[in-house]
Amino acid sequence: MQLSDNFEKIRSLDKEQRHLERVVSALNWDMETYLPPQGVEGRTEQLALLEGIAHQRLTSAETGRLLAELGSSADNPGGDEKLPALERDFLRVMRRRYDKAVKLPSDFVSDSARAEGLSIAAWAQARRDNDFAAFLPHLKTMIGIARKKADYWGFADRLYDGLLDIYEPGMGAAEIGPLFAVLRERLTSLLRDIQDRGAPDTSFLKESFPVEKQKVFFKKLLDYLGFDRQRGRMDASAHPFAATLGANDIRITTRYFKDNLLSGLFSVIHETGHALYEMGFPPELHGTCLAEGASMAIHESQSRLWENVVGRSLPFWKGLFLQLQSSFPQQLALVSVEKFYRAVNEVKPSLIRVDADEVSYGLHIILRFELEQGLISGEIAPEQLPEIWREKIKEYLGIEIDPASPRSDADGVLQDIHWSMGGFGYFPSYLLGNLYSLHFFRKIKSDISGFDDLLGNVYSVAGKNLAPLRNWLRDNIYVWGCRLEPAQLLEKVTGEKLSPDPFLEYLEEKYIRCV
Amino acid sequence: MQLSDNFEKIRSLDKEQRHLERVVSALNWDMETYLPPQGVEGRTEQLALLEGIAHQRLTSAETGRLLAELGSSADNPGGDEKLPALERDFLRVMRRRYDKAVKLPSDFVSDSARAEGLSIAAWAQARRDNDFAAFLPHLKTMIGIARKKADYWGFADRLYDGLLDIYEPGMGAAEIGPLFAVLRERLTSLLRDIQDRGAPDTSFLKESFPVEKQKVFFKKLLDYLGFDRQRGRMDASAHPFAATLGANDIRITTRYFKDNLLSGLFSVIHETGHALYEMGFPPELHGTCLAEGASMAIHESQSRLWENVVGRSLPFWKGLFLQLQSSFPQQLALVSVEKFYRAVNEVKPSLIRVDADEVSYGLHIILRFELEQGLISGEIAPEQLPEIWREKIKEYLGIEIDPASPRSDADGVLQDIHWSMGGFGYFPSYLLGNLYSLHFFRKIKSDISGFDDLLGNVYSVAGKNLAPLRNWLRDNIYVWGCRLEPAQLLEKVTGEKLSPDPFLEYLEEKYIRCV
Repeated sequence: MQLSDNFEKIRSLDKEQRHLERVVSALNWDMETYLPPQGVEGRTEQLALLEGIAHQRLTSAETGRLLAELGSSADNPGGDEKLPALERDFLRVMRRRYDKAVKLPSDFVSDSARAEGLSIAAWAQARRDNDFAAFLPHLKTMIGIARKKADYWGFADRLYDGLLDIYEPGMGAAEIGPLFAVLRERLTSLLRDIQDRGAPDTSFLKESFPVEKQKVFFKKLLDYLGFDRQRGRMDASAHPFAATLGANDIRITTRYFKDNLLSGLFSVIHETGHALYEMGFPPELHGTCLAEGASMAIHESQSRLWENVVGRSLPFWKGLFLQLQSSFPQQLALVSVEKFYRAVNEVKPSLIRVDADEVSYGLHIILRFELEQGLISGEIAPEQLPEIWREKIKEYLGIEIDPASPRSDADGVLQDIHWSMGGFGYFPSYLLGNLYSLHFFRKIKSDISGFDDLLGNVYSVAGKNLAPLRNWLRDNIYVWGCRLEPAQLLEKVTGEKLSPDPFLEYLEEKYIRCV
Repeated sequence: MQLSDNFEKIRSLDKEQRHLERVVSALNWDMETYLPPQGVEGRTEQLALLEGIAHQRLTSAETGRLLAELGSSADNPGGDEKLPALERDFLRVMRRRYDKAVKLPSDFVSDSARAEGLSIAAWAQARRDNDFAAFLPHLKTMIGIARKKADYWGFADRLYDGLLDIYEPGMGAAEIGPLFAVLRERLTSLLRDIQDRGAPDTSFLKESFPVEKQKVFFKKLLDYLGFDRQRGRMDASAHPFAATLGANDIRITTRYFKDNLLSGLFSVIHETGHALYEMGFPPELHGTCLAEGASMAIHESQSRLWENVVGRSLPFWKGLFLQLQSSFPQQLALVSVEKFYRAVNEVKPSLIRVDADEVSYGLHIILRFELEQGLISGEIAPEQLPEIWREKIKEYLGIEIDPASPRSDADGVLQDIHWSMGGFGYFPSYLLGNLYSLHFFRKIKSDISGFDDLLGNVYSVAGKNLAPLRNWLRDNIYVWGCRLEPAQLLEKVTGEKLSPDPFLEYLEEKYIRCV
C-alpha cells in the first residue's frame, strides 16, 4: 500500500514537471514564431523563472525521499523488484533526471544560465560582425562551465563523456571515435567518387515558387505524411524546429523562400519526422517522463529517415510528384520525376552544415566532434578554432576559405549556435541519427513487403501510401518512448549493434550503383 | 536599511508574480488563437498548475512577513509613513492582493477551479443545445461558490458588494443601484425617441468585404490609432480580446466576417483602447503590481472611449474615411462620410449584448446587474432566470421572444459566459466604463483645443491626428497605473464624482439634437 501511495505521489510530481516543461516549450515556440520584437527581454525573464521553479521542484527533498522509499538508488535505479516493468522504467528515468539535477548546485545553475544568455547574445553579434575574437571570452566561459558540469555529473573515461551522456545515454567517445573514423575515411572517398560523375541539372529549381502556393502544398504534404492537424500545427520561423507543447499539441515550423522551394519542403518532412515520433507515444506514457524520444540521436534518426531515406527517394516522389507539379505547373510542367529526384539529391559540398547534402553532412559533424573533444580535453586552445576549422573543412570537403574574406568565421566556425549555449556533446547526435535511421530502414524494408511499390502509388489524400511505414514506426519505435536506451532499442528492433555499414551501403547504393 | 532590504525582497516576489501572470496570459492567448483542437485538455491542466503555483507563492508566509515588517496592515495598507508615495501605493496594492488571496483556503481555491472548469464546459454545451436545465446545477454551484467567496473576503453591506469589489474597488451596490436606476429610466425613453425618428440607410454594409482586404486595412488602422507593433501584435479569435503577455508584449485579437465589416473594425478600435492603456504605463511601474488598469470599469472606459466616443464620431471618420473607401472602392465609392457615420451609429435594440448599439447596450447591463444581485441575495431562484430575463428584455428593449423558439435561452440568458465562470459582479463594469469615458472625454475636449478639427484632418500614417488624445490619456490616466482607485482617479483628472449625466448628455446630443 505504502509502495503504491508513494508511486502515485511521484507520478504526480512528474506530471507537474511535464506541464512545466511544456509551458516552457510553449513560450519558446511563441518566441520563435509570433513574439513582438520588444517582447524578448520579458520573455527571457519568464523562461528563467519557470526553469528555476522546475529545477527547484525536481530537486526537492520530497522527490529524493520518494525515490528512496520506492527502492530506487544509483545502483538500482528501477527500484523495488516487485514493481511492474513500466513502473521500474519510470523510476529509472526519474532517478536519472533527479541525479543529473541535484548534482548541480543551484548557484551554479543560475550562474550558468546567466552566462549562457550573455554568450548567445555575444555569439549572434560576433557572427554578424565576423568577429571571432569578440566571442572568444564567452566561448572560454562556456567551455569552463561544460567541464565543471561533466565533473559534477561524473564520467566514464574522459570529461567529454559526461557531456555526451546527456544527449546519448550510454555512449562515450571511445565508441563514437572509431565509428566516426571509419565514416570520415569512407565519406571523403565517396564524395570524390560522386563528384567525378558530374552534377545533375538543377536549373528548374532556380525558378520562383510563390510563397502562398508553397503554403498550400505544404499543408497537403503534412496530411500526406500523416501529421495529425487536430493534434498539432505548422507555422513559420527563421530556423525550422519541432516542439511538444502537450501530449496532444505538437507543433512544427518551416520557412518560406520564393527562390528556394526545397529548403522549406524538406524542413516540413524533417520536422514531421520528429513530430510523428512525439505524436506516436502510446497513451499510457502520456504525461510521464517516459513520453520522450530514447535520445537525441534516435529522435534525429526519425527526422532523417523521413527527410532523406524516404523523402529523397524515387518511390516517394513517384507517389507525390504529380501533386507538386500541379501546384507549380509553370515551374515544373516539363520536369520528369526522375529529373526532380536527381536534383533533390545533388551532392555538392558546402560551407554551411544545414545546407549540406546527405553525403557531406556527416563530415561537418565529424569535424565538430573532433573540435569539441579537443576543446573539452584542453588539447585544442579556443584561440586556434578558426584556423583548425578551415584546415579540416579543406581536408574533408575540399573547400578553401580565405581567412581575410568578410565572412570567413561567420560562415566558418561561428556558423552554429551550439557551443555558445554550452551544448558540447550535441553534434554527434546528428550523425548517429543517420546511422540509426539506416539500421531501422533496412528492417522496415524487410518487414514491409513491396515497400517501394506502396510508396510509388499515386497520391492519396488519406496518405495511405505511408500508413504501413507509420504503423511500423509506431509499433517498433514510438511504443517505447524512452523506456529503452538507444543501444537497447536498436538491439530490440533489429538485433543489431550500431555500425556505420547500413548508412554507408545506402549511400553507395544510392549515389554510385543506382545512378 | 532593513526597510529597504525588505522592500527589495517584496518587489522581487511581486516581479516573479507578474511573470507568472503573464505566462498564464500567454497560454490563454495561445488557447484562443492557435491551439490545436485536441490540445485543450493539456493546456487546461498547465494553466491550473501555474495558477496554483502563483497562488501558493503569493500567499506564502514570506509575503505576509515582509508586508508586516514594512508596516503594512489592514488598517494601514500603505505601510511605514517614511516610505515614498510610490512605495506606499505599491504596498497598498500588494496588501490588497495578499489579503484577497490568503482569505481563501487553498482547498476552496482548487475545488472552485475544478467546478469552474466543469461549469464553463456545461454552459457551452447548454448554449449549443438551448438547454438551460442542463446548465442549472452548475449555475447553482457557481452561485454557492460566489457567496462563500464574498463571505471569506468580507463585504460592506451585502454579499454582492464583496464580489463587486474585485472588479471595482471601493464601489458597492448601494452606489451603483441609484445610478443604474436613473440610466434605466432615461435610456429606455431615449431609445423610444430615437426609434421614432426612423432608421439610417445601412444597405451598403450588406456588401461583401473580402477578409484579406480587411486584414490590410486593420493593420493600417492599428498604426493610425497608435498601436505600437514593435510591442504588440494582432491576431484573430472567435471572441476579440486584449491580453498583456509582458510589459512590451501586448496583443489584441479581432475577427473577420466577409459580410460584416463593422464587427471586426470596431473590435480593433475597442481592443486597441485596452492595449494603449497597457502600453502606456510609465516604465517605473513596469514589472510591478502597479502596472495595471485602475479597475475593470476604468479599463472599459478606455476601450469604449476609443470605440464609441472617438471611433463612432463624425470627425474621426472625416479623417479616415478616404482610406477605408480606397480599401473597398467597389463597396463604398458612392457612400458619403456622413452616410457612413449614420450607418455605424444605427440604434437598433438586439437580443445579443455584444451586438448592441451604444444606447441599448446599457440596458443589457442593467438587466444583468439586477439579475445577479437577486441571484446572490437569494431573491431570485436560478430556475426563474430564463423567464425573468425575457420579461426584462421585453420591458427594457421592447423585444419579445417565444420561449418555445429554438434559441430562446441560447440567445437569452445563456448568451454570456460570465456567470458560468463565477464572474458575478463583473457586468456593471461595462456600463460604469461608459460613464467614466464621458467624464474623461468632456475634460479632453476642454483641454485640447480644436479637438474635432484635429481628428478631421486628412489621414496621416504617423497617426498625428490622434497624438494629442494619446498624449492626454498617457499624462492623465495611464501614468497612474492602479495607484489610484477609480473614484480617486476620476476626482484627480476631472474634479468630478461619478454621474450618469455626461454619458446621457452625450447620447442626447449625438442621437437627438445633432442628427
